[in-house]
Amino acid sequence: MPSIALVIEFDGTDFVGWQIQDNGRSVQEAVQTALSELYKEDIKVTGSSRTDAGVHARGMVCSAKVPFNIPADKLPLACNALLPPDVAVVRAIDVSEGFNARFDSLGKRYVYRIVHDRVRHPLLRRYAHFVTGRLDVEAMNEAAACFAGEHDFTAFCAAGGSQNTTVRRLRSVEVRADEQTGVIEIEVTGEAFLYNMVRIIAGTLLYVGQGKIAAGDIPAVIESRDREKAGKTLPPEGLTLEEVFYAPDLHINP
Amino acid sequence: MPSIALVIEFDGTDFVGWQIQDNGRSVQEAVQTALSELYKEDIKVTGSSRTDAGVHARGMVCSAKVPFNIPADKLPLACNALLPPDVAVVRAIDVSEGFNARFDSLGKRYVYRIVHDRVRHPLLRRYAHFVTGRLDVEAMNEAAACFAGEHDFTAFCAAGGSQNTTVRRLRSVEVRADEQTGVIEIEVTGEAFLYNMVRIIAGTLLYVGQGKIAAGDIPAVIESRDREKAGKTLPPEGLTLEEVFYAPDLHINP
Repeated sequence: MPSIALVIEFDGTDFVGWQIQDNGRSVQEAVQTALSELYKEDIKVTGSSRTDAGVHARGMVCSAKVPFNIPADKLPLACNALLPPDVAVVRAIDVSEGFNARFDSLGKRYVYRIVHDRVRHPLLRRYAHFVTGRLDVEAMNEAAACFAGEHDFTAFCAAGGSQNTTVRRLRSVEVRADEQTGVIEIEVTGEAFLYNMVRIIAGTLLYVGQGKIAAGDIPAVIESRDREKAGKTLPPEGLTLEEVFYAPDLHINP
Repeated sequence: MPSIALVIEFDGTDFVGWQIQDNGRSVQEAVQTALSELYKEDIKVTGSSRTDAGVHARGMVCSAKVPFNIPADKLPLACNALLPPDVAVVRAIDVSEGFNARFDSLGKRYVYRIVHDRVRHPLLRRYAHFVTGRLDVEAMNEAAACFAGEHDFTAFCAAGGSQNTTVRRLRSVEVRADEQTGVIEIEVTGEAFLYNMVRIIAGTLLYVGQGKIAAGDIPAVIESRDREKAGKTLPPEGLTLEEVFYAPDLHINP
């Protein structure tokens, strides 16, 4: 049976998240329904990660076994004709039979977007979290650098996760501000993540920007392994899964 | 009675347009309702222009007479607490009593956004019109320059307008492409506009990009004064009223 990988973009606003759930529309179900219609039999997909309700993706990856071959350059258009407006396949890649989007993933890149201004902006509200008041972006960037490397991220993990270890390795955390639009991007790249980890790191960096936590105290917050010492979990609309990384010979990353 | 000007941003997706209508939510009504609640009496606002259903604005301007003075730096926050999420006051300006947002306007700047790619993009779909296939942006820019200056724009006017003359002066029409996002911006700046004029100019430039009209034929299309010779009216979601211009001493434009 041929195996495929699909790169998926979705607007998470009106989804309960990636994974199929009883309580509403999931992206996984939308993709499975479209593929099942296309291939005329039940197709199951494996996502690279779950995303929470309201979180967006520009580069979610999922894998599936399919009964016959549709050329990879034709597959996105064929799927998109069957998908709702808030989800689309942006690339399809033929992969070898054993490929699994979750277990073969080497890492992910997320961006948390904050719109920082005196007034809220309706045209940005679906994709960025609105913050007003003073914000020291330089301090946020200084604090961000402390997250890189291997740490026990217990302080940045929501209750309810079921992992064996809370040690994770982040490649980089960077903060960029666009003066013209007021949009601040917190980019987090790492191998694997704990539950709500990016949204808690973003909330902690926001506290640093607001002067509630000193940039120099971040190493101590990490070492404390105390969720109470870190910042709030920021709301989902600011978060976008930008990219999932795989071995270069798979040609999934452009 | 004090007079105020408000700069309004709104996501037009779920509005029937600026102007109050019987058939749904209008931005004007939302703004009037918020101001009436704030000032505890009926407030009417005058918009700089009508916008159609689905069209967005980052810089719509409206004027109103109000019963008492609220400091201009406090007014946006007070209004925004009473406005729905898809509309906000981004600036308030104290103006002299005779000010009228419509009649005192000196011009407007619109941007029509196209997302050009092989596949559609859910995260851009609310604010850009999706176009696939070959597109010659250089030819579009060459054609765009032909629209500047004073012309009879009958070929670029939807039926149903009630103007005395179809002659209008455009300051500039420019086409910019962002290679990274695939977003093409058509920026149109002018003194006044006919009904659907920007969306028809954008549709004509799209035809030029697609090779359906030669860039060199644009002057003849304008001179024809024949709506059939111009391109299609592009859909509203791509259009944003970016800015309305007033005399500098009014301090409405930042």
